[in-house]
Order: sequence, then C-alpha cells, then structure tokens
Amino acid sequence: MRGNGRFVYDFDEPSGGGRELLGGKGVGLAEMTQLGIPVPAGFTVTTDACREYMRNGKTLPSGLEEEIANHLHALEEKTGKRFGDPENPLLVSVRSGAAISMPGMMDTILNLGLNDEAVEGLAAGTGNRRFAYDSYRRLIQMYGEVVDGIDAERFEQALRALKEERNVKQDVELTADDLEELVRGFKQIYEDEIGRPFPQDAGEQLSRAVRAVFDSWETPRAQVYRRANRIADDLGTAVNVVQMVFGNKGAKSGTGVAFTRDPSTGEQGLYGEFLADAQGEDVVAGIRTPERLEAMKRDLGDTFDELLGTMRRLEEHYRDVQDIEFTVEDGRLYLLQTRSAKRTATAALKAAVSMVDESLITREEAVARIDPGQLDQLLHPMIDPDAKVEVAARGLNASPGAACGKVVLDADTAEERGKAGQDVILVRWETTPDDIHGLIQAAGILTAHGGMTSHAAVVARGMGKPCVAGCEGLTINIDARTLTIGGQKLSEGDVITIDGGTGRVIVGSVDLVPPQINEDFETILDWADDLRRLKVRANADTPEDAAKAREFGAQGIGLCRTEHMFMAEDRLPVVREMIMASGEDERRAALDRLLPHQQGDFEGIFEAMAGLPVTIRLLDPPLHEFLPPLEEAKDERMRERIRALQESNPMLGTRGCRLGLLWPEIYEMQVRAIIRAAEAVEKRTGEAPLVEIMHPLVGFAEELHRLRAITLATANEESESVEYLVGTMIELPRACIRADEIAEHADFFSFGTNDLTQTALGFSRDDAEGKFLTRYLEDGVLERNPFETLDRSGVGDLMRIAVERGRGAKEGIKLGICGEHGGEPDSIAFCHGLGLDYVSCSPYRVPLARLAAAQAALKESGVEAVSAGG
Amino acid sequence: MRGNGRFVYDFDEPSGGGRELLGGKGVGLAEMTQLGIPVPAGFTVTTDACREYMRNGKTLPSGLEEEIANHLHALEEKTGKRFGDPENPLLVSVRSGAAISMPGMMDTILNLGLNDEAVEGLAAGTGNRRFAYDSYRRLIQMYGEVVDGIDAERFEQALRALKEERNVKQDVELTADDLEELVRGFKQIYEDEIGRPFPQDAGEQLSRAVRAVFDSWETPRAQVYRRANRIADDLGTAVNVVQMVFGNKGAKSGTGVAFTRDPSTGEQGLYGEFLADAQGEDVVAGIRTPERLEAMKRDLGDTFDELLGTMRRLEEHYRDVQDIEFTVEDGRLYLLQTRSAKRTATAALKAAVSMVDESLITREEAVARIDPGQLDQLLHPMIDPDAKVEVAARGLNASPGAACGKVVLDADTAEERGKAGQDVILVRWETTPDDIHGLIQAAGILTAHGGMTSHAAVVARGMGKPCVAGCEGLTINIDARTLTIGGQKLSEGDVITIDGGTGRVIVGSVDLVPPQINEDFETILDWADDLRRLKVRANADTPEDAAKAREFGAQGIGLCRTEHMFMAEDRLPVVREMIMASGEDERRAALDRLLPHQQGDFEGIFEAMAGLPVTIRLLDPPLHEFLPPLEEAKDERMRERIRALQESNPMLGTRGCRLGLLWPEIYEMQVRAIIRAAEAVEKRTGEAPLVEIMHPLVGFAEELHRLRAITLATANEESESVEYLVGTMIELPRACIRADEIAEHADFFSFGTNDLTQTALGFSRDDAEGKFLTRYLEDGVLERNPFETLDRSGVGDLMRIAVERGRGAKEGIKLGICGEHGGEPDSIAFCHGLGLDYVSCSPYRVPLARLAAAQAALKESGVEAVSAGG
Repeated sequence: MRGNGRFVYDFDEPSGGGRELLGGKGVGLAEMTQLGIPVPAGFTVTTDACREYMRNGKTLPSGLEEEIANHLHALEEKTGKRFGDPENPLLVSVRSGAAISMPGMMDTILNLGLNDEAVEGLAAGTGNRRFAYDSYRRLIQMYGEVVDGIDAERFEQALRALKEERNVKQDVELTADDLEELVRGFKQIYEDEIGRPFPQDAGEQLSRAVRAVFDSWETPRAQVYRRANRIADDLGTAVNVVQMVFGNKGAKSGTGVAFTRDPSTGEQGLYGEFLADAQGEDVVAGIRTPERLEAMKRDLGDTFDELLGTMRRLEEHYRDVQDIEFTVEDGRLYLLQTRSAKRTATAALKAAVSMVDESLITREEAVARIDPGQLDQLLHPMIDPDAKVEVAARGLNASPGAACGKVVLDADTAEERGKAGQDVILVRWETTPDDIHGLIQAAGILTAHGGMTSHAAVVARGMGKPCVAGCEGLTINIDARTLTIGGQKLSEGDVITIDGGTGRVIVGSVDLVPPQINEDFETILDWADDLRRLKVRANADTPEDAAKAREFGAQGIGLCRTEHMFMAEDRLPVVREMIMASGEDERRAALDRLLPHQQGDFEGIFEAMAGLPVTIRLLDPPLHEFLPPLEEAKDERMRERIRALQESNPMLGTRGCRLGLLWPEIYEMQVRAIIRAAEAVEKRTGEAPLVEIMHPLVGFAEELHRLRAITLATANEESESVEYLVGTMIELPRACIRADEIAEHADFFSFGTNDLTQTALGFSRDDAEGKFLTRYLEDGVLERNPFETLDRSGVGDLMRIAVERGRGAKEGIKLGICGEHGGEPDSIAFCHGLGLDYVSCSPYRVPLARLAAAQAALKESGVEAVSAGG
Repeated sequence: MRGNGRFVYDFDEPSGGGRELLGGKGVGLAEMTQLGIPVPAGFTVTTDACREYMRNGKTLPSGLEEEIANHLHALEEKTGKRFGDPENPLLVSVRSGAAISMPGMMDTILNLGLNDEAVEGLAAGTGNRRFAYDSYRRLIQMYGEVVDGIDAERFEQALRALKEERNVKQDVELTADDLEELVRGFKQIYEDEIGRPFPQDAGEQLSRAVRAVFDSWETPRAQVYRRANRIADDLGTAVNVVQMVFGNKGAKSGTGVAFTRDPSTGEQGLYGEFLADAQGEDVVAGIRTPERLEAMKRDLGDTFDELLGTMRRLEEHYRDVQDIEFTVEDGRLYLLQTRSAKRTATAALKAAVSMVDESLITREEAVARIDPGQLDQLLHPMIDPDAKVEVAARGLNASPGAACGKVVLDADTAEERGKAGQDVILVRWETTPDDIHGLIQAAGILTAHGGMTSHAAVVARGMGKPCVAGCEGLTINIDARTLTIGGQKLSEGDVITIDGGTGRVIVGSVDLVPPQINEDFETILDWADDLRRLKVRANADTPEDAAKAREFGAQGIGLCRTEHMFMAEDRLPVVREMIMASGEDERRAALDRLLPHQQGDFEGIFEAMAGLPVTIRLLDPPLHEFLPPLEEAKDERMRERIRALQESNPMLGTRGCRLGLLWPEIYEMQVRAIIRAAEAVEKRTGEAPLVEIMHPLVGFAEELHRLRAITLATANEESESVEYLVGTMIELPRACIRADEIAEHADFFSFGTNDLTQTALGFSRDDAEGKFLTRYLEDGVLERNPFETLDRSGVGDLMRIAVERGRGAKEGIKLGICGEHGGEPDSIAFCHGLGLDYVSCSPYRVPLARLAAAQAALKESGVEAVSAGG
C-alpha cells in the first residue's frame, strides 16, 4: 500500500511514514537532516516500492523510475553536480535499509555515477587522480559483486597480484597509475564474467543497483537471519540514495563508527573506532583493524569535538544509546547513519538505570526497553573466578559470557555439530554474513581479525553469545584443519574455553559458575516487580533448585515434579518392586518404604519456600519409564512386566492421573508424604507451607472428582490442620474444552503447555524436533518453534477457552502456567493478556520472567517496549 | 424430587407421572386398569422413593411406610381381604419396575402376606391345601433368596431330596402333605441361615421386600446390565405391590407370556407360551419348558379368546407390538404386565412396515421406531445357504444371525476369552442374570433349556447376538469341561457354529456369507431416505468394498485410504525401495513404478462409484510402518533406516501431510495417479468421477496452502479437464480451533474423529483399550467408549467450533465425517445437529447410517424414536 501515491522522499521533506516506510536508515537520515545535523543530501525509495516489486515478480512499480529520476534531478540541483557528468559528476551511494536493522545482511554500493569519463572529471574536480581511480575500482568491484554476482575473489586476486607486482603491502601504497591499471583489470574481469562491458550509463547503474538491493532482501542469508531473529518476510527494504562523501581523500578524511555509550558495559563516555583515509566498508568488513575513536584527535581535533557534540544531541533526541556511522571528508563531518545501539545485556541495564538517574527516561521506559531474551546471557554460566586458568591468548571482549566447546573451523561444520547437540566454538579468521547459520548453532565465537564492531562481534552481542574477537595469538590452517592459540597447536575438535567478558582464550575446559545478578539488574527487576501483575514462580524439584529460584525472586513453586524423586538411585529398586508387585498389598508395602523418602524431599522444598506456595504434581510418567530396557531386564518376570507395560504411544498412554485412578495407592502415598512433610515443617519452623496438590493429565471432570475424593480422604487421615489446595494440570485439549466441568472439582488450574502443544498440534516433541518440525522451521511452514514460543492462535486459543469456561464455572479459580513457555517473554505477555495469576519457569529464567511480566503490564497501559538496538 | 409430595399411587388413580415416575411395569398396570382391562388391584411405590432411599444411605424416606400402609388398607377394602389375616389373607406380589426394562435384572417376590396361620386360612378359603402350601414354600424360598441372600441351592436341594424320597419327578406330583413338610424344611433352612425364624408379620415382610427391591437396583449384575445397555445409574426403580392371582390353582389356572406379533419375524398372529398350573416365575426362569399359547384352548377356550381380544386392544392402544404377562386363576384372566416387545431386527422391520400398511402408524413413526443399532444383526454374516452343513442338533431359533467360535462353558471364561479377542460361543444348560458379563463377550449363545422367552433368548435378542435356546440334543459335563451335541462328544475349546435364525447347531466351523437386505428393510430404508438430510457415504479402499457400499445405498466414498494399496504384496518391495532411496531421484524412480498400480486401484474404485463423489486420502501412516521389524531387517542399511525412522509416539510423528511436505514427490505421484485414473475412467465410461483429494493431519493453514499448490500444479500437468476438489481431514484439535484459516485453502473438511479423539483426549487407542480405558468403563469413570460413541461434550465441542469457524470463513464449505463414529447412531444424530453434509462409515453400516440419519431429522422435527421393547 502506498501512503499517498509516492515511492520516493527526499531526506529534507516530511514523508508521513516512519521506519516501516523509510527503513531504519532512511528515517534516521531524514530525522537528522531535519534536526540540522550534517548529513549528505539524498532520498529514500520506500519499502512500499520493494513490496510492490516483490509482489509483481521482480518488476519495478510503474512510475518508480521516473520518480527516482525526478529526485535525482533535485539532488543534482542541490549539489550543483550532474549524475554521469564527465566534468563535475554527482556520485551517490545506494544503501539498503529495512525497518528492522539487519546488519551485514543487505548490500551497499558506493560511488555510483562513475564511468570512464566521469572518473577523469572527478580527478580534475578534486585534483586527486589517485582518489578518483580508487573510487572507480571500488565501484566496479562492489557493483560486480552485488548487482551481477561476480565472485569477490576475482577482484581481490587482481588486487593482490598488482600489489605483489608493485611489491607493496597496503592498498594505500598503490599509486594513481596503479589504480588506473587496476580499473582496467577490473573492467576486464567484469566483461569476462558478464559478457558485456561495465555499464557506462549512470542511470542504468542506479536503476540496476536499486533492483539489486530489493533482490538482496530475498537472499538465503537474509532469510536465515530473519528466521533466527523472527523478522517477517514481507516487510521489504527501503533504498537510500545518498550523495557520496569521501573518507578516502587523504589524511584529513576518514570513516568511523561510534556509540554514545559503551555497548559492552553501558558506561558513559567515548566509544568508537576510526579508520583514516578509508571508506566505511573497510571498517565494517573488518579488513583493516581500525584505531580507537580518540585517534581522530591527532589530525582532526575540531571534527572530533563536533562529533562528540553531535552524539550528545542525538542521544538526547532519541533518549537512547545511539550507534552512528560517520565519514570525514577533508575535515568536514557527515553522519551517514544513526540507530539505537545493539548492546550487551549488562550495557542495556547500566544504560537504562543511568538514563533514569539522568532523568532522560522514566522507570517505566527503562523497564520497557530491556530485551528480556537478552538477559538470558547474564544468567549463563561464567568462568569460576576462583579457578586457576592458564590464558593461552587474549582478544577483544566482544560479547560477554563464557563458553566451552570443541573447536570447529567453518560454519557448515558448526551448524552440523551444533544441531547434533554438541557444544562447539566457531573459530574463524573473521566471520561474514555467509557464516550466519554457523553462528546460530555455535556456543561461542572466536575470531583472529576484526574489532568490536566487526560482524562476529555485532552478531554475537545480538544473540547473547560469548565472543572473543580480534585475537592476535590465533592462526588457522584451514586445509590441515588445525590452529594455534598462543603458540599451542590444536586440531579441530579439541576443546577450548572463551570468556567473552574479558577476552580470555583458554585451551581445554574450565569450570563455569552461575553468574551473580548485579546491581543494575536488581534495580531494573525491582522496578519491574512494582509494575507487573503476573506472579512469577519456578519449576523446581529439589531444595537446591528451590533455593536458587527464591534467590532469583520466585514467588513460589509452580511445578514440583515428583518422578525425579522416584528415579533417585536409592529409590529406584523400591519403585521397581512396587511396579513388579503381584497385588495391591505387595504394592502398598513397597510404597510404604518410599514414603519417608518422599516426605524428606518435600520437607526440604517446603523449608526452602517457607511462606510461599508450592505446587506438587503427583506421579506423571508411565510406569515403564522406571523399568530397565527390555534387553537389560534380569529375569523373565520383569521382561513380562516390561512387555505388558510397553506402549505404542506412551505420551497418550497410561500415565498422569490414569495411574492414580488405576492404582490409587500410589497417589495416596504421595498425598500422605506431602501432608506429613507440611506438618513436620510447620512444627519445626513455625511457618506453614502453602501446599497445592496437582493431578496431571486430567481430561474428564469425573477423573478429578474421584481423585479429589481420594486426596481429601487421605489427607484427612493424616492431619486435620494442614491446609492445602487440590487442582489439576490443564494439558489436554479436552480439559480446555470442558474446563467448566473440571473447575467444579479444582481449586486451581495450571496450564501444562508442553503436553498441550503436543496433543493440540499432534506433535510428539521427541519425534518432531530434529525431524519434521526442524524442516517446517527451515522451510518456513512454521515461523517459530511452538515448543519454544506458545502457539497463540492454536494452543493459545484453547487456553483462552479454558480460562473463559473455567472462570465462568468458578470465578476465583487460581490460574497459572508451568510449561516451558512460562519462561519465554512473548508467551508471558500472552499469559498476562489471558489474565492468568502466575507463570512458572525454570529458576534461571525467573528474572527474565519478572521483567517480561512487567513489560506485558506496561504494554497494556500503553508503554511500548523500545527495541533496543532495533 | 417428589412430584406432589406423594410416593405411592394406586393403579386406578392418576399419578401425573409416566414411566420415569412409575416404572414401565407400573405405568402399564395403571394404564390397563384405567382402560378397563382385567388387572389385579394394587399400587406403585415410585422411583422417587427409590432415589430418596439411595440418597439417604438406604433409609426409606420418612412417611413412606405410612403411605404404603394407607394404600395397603385401601387394597384390603377393595379386595375384602386383610393383609396377614389368618382367615382370609390378602396376598401380594412385590415386583420391581424401572423406567427402562431390565429383564431378569430386578427381583420379584410372590405370595407376600403368608405365614403359618394365613396359609391355613388360604387353604380353607380356597379349599386347596396343596395350593396354599405350594404358595407358602415359594414365598419362603423367594424371600430367603431375595431379601436375605440365602443361596437358592439350599432350597433346591431340599426340594430335590424330597422328590427323591417320594420318588417323583415333577413338583406337581408332590402332595399337600409333602409341601407342608417342605415348608417346615424351608423354614428351618431360613432359621439356620439367618439366625431367626422366618418373619410371621406380613407388614414386616412387605417393608423388607420393598427395601430389597430398592437394593437390587445396585447389585453388580444390575450395574453390569446398565453399563452394557447405557442406562443411567441414578434412575432408580419403582416397586409394584399387586394383589396375588394364582396360576397354580390347578388345571383351570396357569400363567403365560404372549406377544401381539412374532418377536422373531414380526409376522402377525399368535405368539406366546403357556404353562398350566404354574406361577410366572416358572416360565421366565426356564425351569419348566412351557407349551405354545394355543395349548390354552384345551381347557381354557373362552379365556383364550378373551386374551386374544385383549391383546388386539393393547396393540391398538399402544400402536406397537406388545409383550404381555398374564395369569389365569380358575378361568379368570389377569394381565400382569404389558410393554413394547423386544424383537429381532427382522421382526421390528416387518412389524413397522405392516403397521403402516394397517394404517396403525405413519411412515415417520415406522422409521423412528427401528433401533438402528439392532439392524447391525441383519448385517452380520449368515451361514452360506449353499454350504453343505451337517446339523448336529437343533434348538429354538431364539435370536437370529450365525456365529462360529470356540465353546466355553461358563460366563467367566467367556468374558476372559472374549476380551482377549477370541470368538467364543457360551454353552450353558440355561443362563441366569449372573451370566450377563459372559453374554456380553460371547459371539453367540447356546442353551439346553429354556424357551423363546428364557433369559438367554431375551438378552441375546436385545443384544443382537445369535442364540439357539432349548437345544435338547445338548448335554454338558461341567466338571469334565466336556459336552455332547447330538451325541458327538466335544471339549471346551472345540469350535461349533450356531445359526440363531434357524436353530441349527453345527460342530466345527462353517463358511459365513453376508446377508441380503430384505424387502421390509428396503422399504424402511426408502422411507428413511426420503426423510433424511445427511448424506451417507462409505469408507472403502477397494473396488469390491465400493461396490458393496453402493449396493447398501452409499452415496459416495467418504474415505478411500491409500496405504492399503501400498501394503499389497506386489507393491511393498517397491514401497520399501522408495523409503530406502538415497536421494530424491531414486525415490522418484521407485514412485514412478508404483504409479500404474495406484492408478489401477483408483480406476476400479471410480468405476464402482461412477457419478458419485470419491474422497481419496493421500498417504497417511508413518513410513516405518512399511518396513519390516528391526529384527527381521536383512541388511545394515535397512536397519539403519528403520532406526532413523523409529518414533517414540508414531501417532504424533512424521505422518499425514507431514510426509507430503517432507517428500512432496510421494503426494505428487498419488495426485498424478488419481488424475490419470479419473481421465481414463471418463474416457472409458463417459461418466466423470467426482474426485476429492484429501490431505490428512493438517494442523496449520500453511500446510494445506502449500499442499494445495503442489496438488494443483501436479494435477494441471496431467489434465486440464478433470475436475476435483482439494480438502483436508480435520483430526487435530488445532485444526478445529483454526478451521477458519484452514478453510481458506480447503474445498471440504472431513472430520477424522478417530484421531481427533486420540489427540483431544490424549488417548492412544492402542494403549487405552484393554488397559486404562477398559478400567475407566468398568469403574464408571466414563460411561461410553469414546472410540465407539463420539465424546459429544469434548470432541463434539471441538467439532462445533470447527464447523462454526470453518463455515464462518467459507460459507459453503462441504463438511463430513469419516471416523468410525460415522456409523454409530448417536454420533450420526450429533453430526446431523452440527449441520454436516454427510457421514461416512464402513459399507456394512451404511443402511444403519441411512436410518439413523432419518431419525435425527425426525427427532429435530419432533418425531421421537420409540424405544422398541423399552
């Protein structure tokens, strides 16, 4: 849909559209222009045009070329130059810019407008022949690669050959004549590859470049990135056509990137990199290692000060950490881009807390703009600070967190082994966008080249993965599949540990420890707690997990599974006796021996959660899970029992409350153990635990009706004083549909969305992941893994029905979720919207859930999360 | 709830309640009384009283005893006799009578009111001392058995001993003195067993008898019967207290049962049995084999004529075949009961058609009163009429249909082996209500004793099971577990065949053939076709099944499964090659070889169904089902593939449309074969088949979106002329919930309620039946097997949501059902209510479905099905 019939807007005219229309880059350029910040002149071709182009089978929308021509003409007027002019040519860059930033994913072409005549005009006009031919050879290479798909290596080879011939090491050592020769060579390469000469018509160059940007939206690597980052496929990209400014005009020129605060720590102060006499691509590609930003002071003191002032203005304007690209041409500063900076979780927290202190943003805004998914990285293990580690090499601390794994030397291998469940560290000279599939699967990334803003560093920070970049002690022999780290020779498959927080690289594995929650994190979580309505509980089966969960702020246990207690080494033989029992008496005898163990387990958990609710799920898995595999069974009687218990689809078999109805003595024992434990803990500590007894896999009200009666009768035999609730998991579609009837026998519902997803979708998780579900995600049949993010429109709608009907039958019934989705931000937002009382997740995800719950509440009241780094 | 504060009604006063309040027997007695038909005086204690009694923990409701006393007093006035009077005692029978007939399930006590004094008064008053003591000994035995639970064998033993002592064979040969001695013996037995003398107080007898009837509602055998016949447990029974009339007063007395039409064939005319000088229990229990009704003419010509007239009146009044019990006392006729007669399916059809011819009922009523479930028996195999069979013995053709199976000699064994899946014939001297669990599991029943109205015969007809009763050539040695049939000695476990339609018993197995649909059946089905809205299709995978289905009136095929075609011996090796293929090319090569086979299959089916729609489901089962078991795999490569394809829960794994998306070449081949077959058949026959291509197991709209595209692309490659629809099974809860989105890509939906039940309930059918589901049904957690009768409130509500949302998105979308429920009457009624377009079921159930569909339409328009024999 076209906003108002136009596809193109100058930077200095209002478009009426935001980043959806102009893309992130375009909207930034337009806003900066309108703020009076120095930006080269130019215009944006909107995402509407791209969408039209894709819809029409890669045909430019009618009228677009004319519109572009008109705006180009205006640009010519503004600059006093003419596109393709042999005397005073206008040069432009063509840069993609989607609504959501996809760094390195889309393509850029610089110096458009040069041809055999214009290059001479540029040489004459600037008095810098070397610069003119350097620009021209860059154009031919970029254009050849991006528009016509020529292998970059063809050009690089020619460049290397020339440098060898001239016996120089750096590009800058080549003379104007050398570069003129290189241009001839490049043009020949182009003609050899494409079958026609490099286009001399500047209009044709521009038109084909715009198409190429549009086409690049659909390259496989862009698609992979979008899938990994959950970006819709139909957004499309805008194209920015920007007057060229030149950072490669000599010592008074250069290019750089800068952050208004340190994107790794969030600390205020200078943070950036600068490369003198270079164009931007040299920085981003990590080909030359740049200097620190402060290096500008050497030759460009005034410009440096202007840059600092501009950065301050931008941060005040956007009220967020900005990540800018700039170019200095003969001492004159041009901003080429500004955007909210991608940052580490630590930095995001620090910056948010500081900005509240600086009164730049409110607490609500601070809470809203932290990406809960990113916090995960803070909750990952770190290298044990007390461990003695021998550091083999050091690199840049590009993305914090520690990782330990086997070395792999290319992205394909990383993907393969990562998917197979191995922890791998991807070790590369440098990474490129083509490595994205390997980066996704790697536990950590180590590169020899590139700085803090190199591809590897940026992507790793975005993903919350540990990364050490620019590690000079690293060399790789890709043919031999070996590497050296600080002189030690290793082979692919050897284990290393990297610490992205400090830049350390260690050969071998190192003990990792859970991280502490720092002060900023605590502050944000405290604010979040004031804002959220959803309570957050943890899934915990042991006193240790319960204690950890409480430390992370859990407000109780939403799911305490009892089967792990049955699996413990000292109990399994008794559990097996129980299963093998030839009658109820024998079964009860075995259960009597299990009872004290169960009671002990519960006592520990109740103590750790004193004063908070603890939901205990009675035995759930099919009994055959407690028996050995058939081939390991010792005697014929056990083999017979194993065979009798075998099931075609154990997921849908004799488990959950079906066990409790077939052999009530099992649940009776468990209820007895719970009540005795509660009484003992109350006596010992004076604080009564809030016990919630939960029956799994109920599908029919009559099941819960009977189980409730058994539970009450047993509990009353044990104690008259212990208070407890009786409830059920809602994990079958039928339970959702008949939640009204079931509610009559339940004090609470807890949605078991793992099993509910399996049954509602007919997806056995064991059989789907790695098989058809993986293919579905790869092929885009599904956008997201429904076991990771709640399938809102399917499973979620069943939940909605259950909530409506359950509350309809029993107004105050307590509602929670204890599936893995309870720790996933989008699913938490959905649960908030449903009106659940709490979510329950693994202890390590509790902080994330607290934040996500607050954001859901904020979103409801109109405070939208800012996509930090978006 | 008490209608108006009363618990007791005389037969001649209006109660304002029907059979729910008075029970079937009570309402019949009241109506007959009010019609002026001779009925003994009496009153009914309502089912309300029974329900109160059960609710109050087996305490009679307050005031009930007084109410009974009042009505008893009125009865005394009416008869001029006094209860417990030593001179002219009033005797009553106490008979249970529930709203729905439960023959043999509930208990009856005759001759209440007799005691040591009254028996003398009865002797004096009737001048028949033998009769008086015969009545008394019957009372003591029945009361002892029913009220106090004394083993009948104790009394029978004493009777046998006395007969041996007196050297007589028949009870009637015993003299008055003999019977007086027997009464003394019976009283001693009673006192020995119970610890106090037989109660002499008539009021106490009555009060305890009423409680005993109430209690008998909850005996295990009554519960089993109710479960088998789907009768609610909370209906309760009424109690009828009826003045005794005596069939055992001599040659001018007797008792009998009669039907207004033959309950086996439906033919008009006399049908009944009579036993002179006997009480009713002698007939029902099958202890003495009665004579044909016409035997009455011998001594009771006038009474016989009066009986015929009364039967005609009753049939005209009730407009249905009546089953009556009567007693003749000294030539005077008394009707004791009338009810709609249980009848065979053949009889039900014949009677219904005749009554329409006789203008007694309308066509709608005729259609409404046939029990579709009962028709099943007509659609069961019969003995091949051309087969030469050697008849070992003959009995009564008590319940039609043929059955072949292993002999079992007791009900427990029948139950055990039947549940284990064996076909067994239960062979007994006679059956009693205690055998009910064995009758349910047996394929057929053979008894040595008893007539057409014996327990075995009545129950078998009700269940539609073959039964040969009263087979005189049969003897059983229960200790030796052997039997002889017509002199041939057999052992338990040997195979016999019975033909319940002719009474033949054959040793060994005999070929059975499918039955023909007779003229009455055709007539009823024609009427049904005029009345129904639902179309009826068949599930058929072969041309033979398709032809049979069409013969039975199927209006197309609703489900043609293609996997059976893959399993055929000549194809399986190619299918395995396809599965083992190392790449797409190899796989396509194997599929190319399968294509002509598939095409041939489809051509046969299209020809059989020319002009009618045929829904073909593309491949559904997981591929490992086509591979041998791991231990039988020949080489390591196959073992590897089997292991790779193994699934934890195949039901929820890589099957259905997931196959079609992972390996599109499989569905492409199938679509190609379908389109080519359609084109070939059209060319050959001039009639284009109506092809519907169905994708199984769709859960997400995107799946069908892509599959539809593949289907269309492939079909268009093959033909431009063949028309076809593309649709999907709705067999996952998510598909129901998102039917709106899925409908956008579907021309039709077919509910696959087998899988939908499995996923919605989390019941793997393979793992549930015989395991927890069986226990659920036994224990009453579930009333009905959800795989047999649709779980309306759960699965049915999901279907309702799917219909609403599917039609909401695409108004005219065609909707059907192809799960097994499509052939089950209650489920068909539900589908009618949902507004589906068709049901599809197995070919043999098509007639039943046609009828059930008509009844659903009738019910909607207010014509209720009469419970034939209810």
